[in-house]
Amino acid sequence: MSITVLKGHIVSAPKLGALETLENGYLVLDDGIIQGAFSSLPERFASAPVSDYGDRLILQSFADMHLHAPQYPMLGLGMDLPLLDWLKQYTFRTEAQFQDTDYAREIYRQLAQRLIRSGTTRVVMFSSIHTDATLILMEELERAGVTGYVGKVNMDRNGAPGSYQETTEESKRETLRFLEAAADFSRVKPILTPRFTPTCTDELMAWLGQTARERGLYVQSHLSENKQEIAWVRELHPDCVEYWETYDKFGLFSDHTVMAHCVYSSAREREAMKRRNVLVAHCPDSNINICSGFVPLQIMLEEGLWVALGSDIAGGAELPMNRVITAAIRMSKAKRIESEWAQDFLTVIEGYYLGTTAGARYFGAGAGFAPGDPLHAIVVDDAALPKTRALSLRERLERAIYLMDDRSIVAVYSEGKKVV
Amino acid sequence: MSITVLKGHIVSAPKLGALETLENGYLVLDDGIIQGAFSSLPERFASAPVSDYGDRLILQSFADMHLHAPQYPMLGLGMDLPLLDWLKQYTFRTEAQFQDTDYAREIYRQLAQRLIRSGTTRVVMFSSIHTDATLILMEELERAGVTGYVGKVNMDRNGAPGSYQETTEESKRETLRFLEAAADFSRVKPILTPRFTPTCTDELMAWLGQTARERGLYVQSHLSENKQEIAWVRELHPDCVEYWETYDKFGLFSDHTVMAHCVYSSAREREAMKRRNVLVAHCPDSNINICSGFVPLQIMLEEGLWVALGSDIAGGAELPMNRVITAAIRMSKAKRIESEWAQDFLTVIEGYYLGTTAGARYFGAGAGFAPGDPLHAIVVDDAALPKTRALSLRERLERAIYLMDDRSIVAVYSEGKKVV
Repeated sequence: MSITVLKGHIVSAPKLGALETLENGYLVLDDGIIQGAFSSLPERFASAPVSDYGDRLILQSFADMHLHAPQYPMLGLGMDLPLLDWLKQYTFRTEAQFQDTDYAREIYRQLAQRLIRSGTTRVVMFSSIHTDATLILMEELERAGVTGYVGKVNMDRNGAPGSYQETTEESKRETLRFLEAAADFSRVKPILTPRFTPTCTDELMAWLGQTARERGLYVQSHLSENKQEIAWVRELHPDCVEYWETYDKFGLFSDHTVMAHCVYSSAREREAMKRRNVLVAHCPDSNINICSGFVPLQIMLEEGLWVALGSDIAGGAELPMNRVITAAIRMSKAKRIESEWAQDFLTVIEGYYLGTTAGARYFGAGAGFAPGDPLHAIVVDDAALPKTRALSLRERLERAIYLMDDRSIVAVYSEGKKVV
Repeated sequence: MSITVLKGHIVSAPKLGALETLENGYLVLDDGIIQGAFSSLPERFASAPVSDYGDRLILQSFADMHLHAPQYPMLGLGMDLPLLDWLKQYTFRTEAQFQDTDYAREIYRQLAQRLIRSGTTRVVMFSSIHTDATLILMEELERAGVTGYVGKVNMDRNGAPGSYQETTEESKRETLRFLEAAADFSRVKPILTPRFTPTCTDELMAWLGQTARERGLYVQSHLSENKQEIAWVRELHPDCVEYWETYDKFGLFSDHTVMAHCVYSSAREREAMKRRNVLVAHCPDSNINICSGFVPLQIMLEEGLWVALGSDIAGGAELPMNRVITAAIRMSKAKRIESEWAQDFLTVIEGYYLGTTAGARYFGAGAGFAPGDPLHAIVVDDAALPKTRALSLRERLERAIYLMDDRSIVAVYSEGKKVV
């Protein structure tokens, strides 16, 4: 046994709408694995070393369930362009640069550092089409202490032919090379990543579905982000009634598939996601920046869909997940206004759950600070935020979610290890 | 003559939708007064000392046209509450604390520092009902280098009787005391501040209107923020067809009146604002946080209304005006979605104009870096932002507006003086 103890104000969201708070509590770890959270330290742990965080908050760290690593250099750029121009003028050009592995190393090291210092310890991430850059990304994430899934992107049509697109053969071959090399990593795992239906031929989709099945791999992609896209998909697959069926018919819509956006998913599409245990990666800041639309979040949650949050950089311009949580709150309020107050908004406590436990479940974690899980946590010093009256822990959580930045995060634990 | 020169990339927005950029340009000052911006330094200034900001951006500083100073301690709190509960549970309790002048000194010093370090050099601001705290606020703003207008709040009904409300007599007497003491300040001036129609009796409103006229004072208040409020005002003033008329009939709706929000202003109300040269302080983050609604910003701008931006803390949770600009952009996109793409969104360049020149005009300043104006500027170092390809100055402005924080702002000039 290698027992260590963290002391501080422990705040977790074990389920949607619930908050557990322990003032001056003790979080006991054995070799980084949570043994329990206690209001007073049990006698049997009395001799263990204590990291005393005093009046600081010990919060769950964040899970970012959808982001594009090679779009990091275009963060906060091109926001005035409509989606298709944005893709052509910025996105494909930016991603194409990751053929250069030195460039990839530099950018991905920056990104991994920025993620961990913002308190994001788990990700489900798109890379570019480049196998070597993708492996570099995995290295840099592991080095920084970020865990999760990374996918080399597959796109063999409707990209930028000549500069940023693969042939079907290349896409298959490079995917196999990626999967083989990715086996060397322990904390970051590969995920299959057809960019979205319009950029993948039927042959490639079928091969990816078969590969997922044969190797037991998870899949990530995009679904029903905007109306033009949906119309385009319908043209490409006249045999499918709805967008999700274009994935489903190739075996790419099953347990733990991550589908980003789902802004315009119908009741039937949502029902299919629920039945298949597909995770909806809701990306609120991206949805507003590129004018996609308002997700019916309240309805999805009431229906019991599995929803978590994604920064979706660089459609999203906010990498820190506390800002993505407030974006989700704000967008739920926009939906409330648009629906003439028919739909309720997301509360801060619900937002904290969506940004933590809801995503952590994807990686096999339990609810909140569950015993048996490796610790994923951040320690927040809110003393530099505006001085105010004495606040409850619930209020301090709210203020931290709205106002904190990387300067407020004084320690980060990932997979049981202190990484910041 | 006391000539000084600033060298750097000069970026200004002289009118809505226009951007002026000078790469490696020279901004020449005489005792802090702008003489001109030049692509090469004119011979006659060749011997003047140069502050060389190298590859940094020299931008216009920001004007925050609506914010509540005594709500700073509740920034990022109470965001889950409906407006009236939020007022009762947080706002009035928080503002009431400013009876304590030591507390006021501490909070207002923090706020003034935070404003100037975020690049806000001009404000039109609500204080609380307390005269002494209001004078302390003015002192601290002047000390930090923030200029503008500050108003002691008037409210003699519908506040929190016993803890946070005045009698009509107190309100008049304290307003006169405030105006007399405020004459001692040079860079911060008084403004009359009926909180809003529901909190002021007819007698008080009439007296404020008369005082404004007699002393040539400007007025600030709130207008048409949400539907319940509008219905309430209608009950209180059955003789008025629209909300604005409740101010107008007392002489409180005239040139340079600042009206915050105007979310539900009708075409007729907007026409009255245009006719009277009333400034609309659009507060996008507040409008979404407390679910007020979507401002028809595009329509207001097309109609030629005078619109500028306000953080409206603490209904707004973002004090830095670059974040208020991006909130305005995002809210204009929400309006676009809600209007089924009938209304266009605000571009970054337009947002920069609304956060700078449009507000600066209130204080008598010209467009952009206009010769004859005292310099109001910030110097932005964007080298720590994500590394990317070479960007145009327009792109660097966009990225700075989306991503910068106080760490990016390496110098601030206010009224011709370097204050950071």
